[in-house]
Amino acid sequence: MIQLILGGARSGKSTLAERLASGLTDNVVYIATAARIADDLEMIERINLHRERRPTSWTLVEEPLDLASAIETHQRMGCCIIVDCLTLWLSNIMLLDEGRHFKQQVTDLFSVLSGFQGNLILVGNEVGMGIVPMGKLSRRFQDESGRLHQQLATLCDRVVLTVAGLPLVMKGEKI
Amino acid sequence: MIQLILGGARSGKSTLAERLASGLTDNVVYIATAARIADDLEMIERINLHRERRPTSWTLVEEPLDLASAIETHQRMGCCIIVDCLTLWLSNIMLLDEGRHFKQQVTDLFSVLSGFQGNLILVGNEVGMGIVPMGKLSRRFQDESGRLHQQLATLCDRVVLTVAGLPLVMKGEKI
Amino acid sequence: MIQLILGGARSGKSTLAERLASGLTDNVVYIATAARIADDLEMIERINLHRERRPTSWTLVEEPLDLASAIETHQRMGCCIIVDCLTLWLSNIMLLDEGRHFKQQVTDLFSVLSGFQGNLILVGNEVGMGIVPMGKLSRRFQDESGRLHQQLATLCDRVVLTVAGLPLVMKGEKI
Repeated sequence: MIQLILGGARSGKSTLAERLASGLTDNVVYIATAARIADDLEMIERINLHRERRPTSWTLVEEPLDLASAIETHQRMGCCIIVDCLTLWLSNIMLLDEGRHFKQQVTDLFSVLSGFQGNLILVGNEVGMGIVPMGKLSRRFQDESGRLHQQLATLCDRVVLTVAGLPLVMKGEKI
Repeated sequence: MIQLILGGARSGKSTLAERLASGLTDNVVYIATAARIADDLEMIERINLHRERRPTSWTLVEEPLDLASAIETHQRMGCCIIVDCLTLWLSNIMLLDEGRHFKQQVTDLFSVLSGFQGNLILVGNEVGMGIVPMGKLSRRFQDESGRLHQQLATLCDRVVLTVAGLPLVMKGEKI
Repeated sequence: MIQLILGGARSGKSTLAERLASGLTDNVVYIATAARIADDLEMIERINLHRERRPTSWTLVEEPLDLASAIETHQRMGCCIIVDCLTLWLSNIMLLDEGRHFKQQVTDLFSVLSGFQGNLILVGNEVGMGIVPMGKLSRRFQDESGRLHQQLATLCDRVVLTVAGLPLVMKGEKI
């Protein structure tokens, strides 16, 4: 079962993903897409906050770029993979080498997802409901993010939008 | 029946509007509010993308400013008009002559809509759920956009919010 | 009963809050968090617009900072307090003295809310669904706003998201 949890900043996406995973199994692989060598203090604080909240029994995998391989490697019946989050990954692959590997990375992800067995929970930021940004890169990021979410939603069994920590199920069974 | 499809950037608004129209009739008039003589490459690409997706049998009308007349002219029982999108039109009329005709254009639109017979699907961007923008014009745009959507929602038979390509019906019959 | 009304800019939050309050009682205390001595014309216009819409019988309290005390002072069975809005208050306390009293103010608010008797309707802006802002303060504001809404949602009896003036009930009884 593949689930997509979307929501605004601090809307409770990660907490919901972690709650859903805990309800499924103790065998959770947490794929963090934030780079380990985060270069600013603010990002390090955010990573640490997330880290403290997770059970120590969970496996932590840090993969800022090659998400497809990370999912494929840890795919296993009876376990649950959380990807937190798609938005940072998208940002990482769009910035790397001026986006030269961007399309390939997205293709690889969908190729792994289409054959995925087991439980997978994908977390992403809803970034498209504000004023259209001035910068061209921001606009492109908003577009690619929206496209990614649309494509993912078609193959996910459940899609949830979180608002103020509350889940709104857009597709699939109620929580 | 008048329907309003709101959603963030790349949330599947236009695709849903086109699907709903196709389900009603083959006789679709597509009113594009993007100016034909778009002055930047990015906008031209967006217009072309939209254009390629539409059946060639549909009538294309390009009207960046006088939306009321465009709707009135093509209003006909048995056909369906799509307006894609309100947000670009609002931006166009707010910028033209420093917004001197803005109120009149909005009044004209509501006057045509109040007597409208047939099927009309209006597409608009949800732009109010991000950080309040710094620029005064952006703030005013966000305000006017929100007001327009509120006013339209009261006279629409169905209002839908799209997220990740999925419809959330806010008013009217489920899709 | 405590209710939280969230929504984007001009999404009909305040109007809904006022409608819900009017349906409960004539005895409404309206706590406005916009500073009386607003220093720009735009804000004064916004305040006046809100003011004109409210019944003259309602009690108006202007409290930009000490929201906890304002709620506690006016708490009374049979009356209904509206707080409009949380977002402006959050912005006020984050900016005052470089946010030195911020945590205390939030703690005080939750302390008053946890023992609250009567009817309270809190209005807040959803600001987290756009592109992550460039400025560090905006980012922090977005985070704190999201956290505040999450915390409030757990203790509220009803949470509503407004879109185009229409209510989407996220928690509690339908409207």
